[in-house]
Amino acid sequence: MAKGSGPEAVASAFVDAWNRHDMRAFGALFAEDADFVNVVGTWWKGQAEIEAAHARSHATVFRDSRLDGRAVSVRRLGPGAAAVHLAWGLTGHLALDGGPSGGPRRGILLLVVTEEAEGWRIRAGQNTDVVPGLSTPPVAKG
Amino acid sequence: MAKGSGPEAVASAFVDAWNRHDMRAFGALFAEDADFVNVVGTWWKGQAEIEAAHARSHATVFRDSRLDGRAVSVRRLGPGAAAVHLAWGLTGHLALDGGPSGGPRRGILLLVVTEEAEGWRIRAGQNTDVVPGLSTPPVAKG
Repeated sequence: MAKGSGPEAVASAFVDAWNRHDMRAFGALFAEDADFVNVVGTWWKGQAEIEAAHARSHATVFRDSRLDGRAVSVRRLGPGAAAVHLAWGLTGHLALDGGPSGGPRRGILLLVVTEEAEGWRIRAGQNTDVVPGLSTPPVAKG
Repeated sequence: MAKGSGPEAVASAFVDAWNRHDMRAFGALFAEDADFVNVVGTWWKGQAEIEAAHARSHATVFRDSRLDGRAVSVRRLGPGAAAVHLAWGLTGHLALDGGPSGGPRRGILLLVVTEEAEGWRIRAGQNTDVVPGLSTPPVAKG
């Protein structure tokens, strides 16, 4: 990330790199020792592994996919650290097993970011699909 | 959390409160403004909502459940902030739609914790099921 940008800029850069299918730019958003847990619980460890896994999926199931998403919550965790929630929708993808897509997906990506010399980078990402019919509305207050 | 405990103690306290089905103790692990995204993408906002949602599920689908889990990764995010990955297995539960369980589940819970006057508390949690057959092994290096 360019120096001077806030932590939420990582979320928009994530979406931009995905839609350009530019996995070098995508990988550069992550710190060397980053963790990423995808929607089916695959845990990639380290920038190289995260970039390689996404290079593979963007050559196959995500090749023609389009991600729409934005940071809907940014919470500071002290100096130089923040938690960013990115709400997203995905179209144009194949199913994760390579079969035809079951239709548009949406979900929530939690990005834990820290500020380094070169700007904000992702230290931990975890992604969860919103499952229609099982995702319950917030409990009413009071 | 007791003062003086490290961030990983939040993970064991999470498991303990779950297995005692003590939702007051469970809720007390979360900061007032915490976020929690569950395995099907339900996003609960604030300690009261998180506690109420879990009180409801522990009176129904999770009433006889048992959670086995431990912190498998703790990463400091600067002073007073950390990301903790909790690897878990769950047995004795019903399905989220109230139907019979499809069998043991396992998953990864990311806990973003900060140190407050009373000790470490959860600011953001996000939980993801490991989906057998879809969760891919790490990409080989080199």
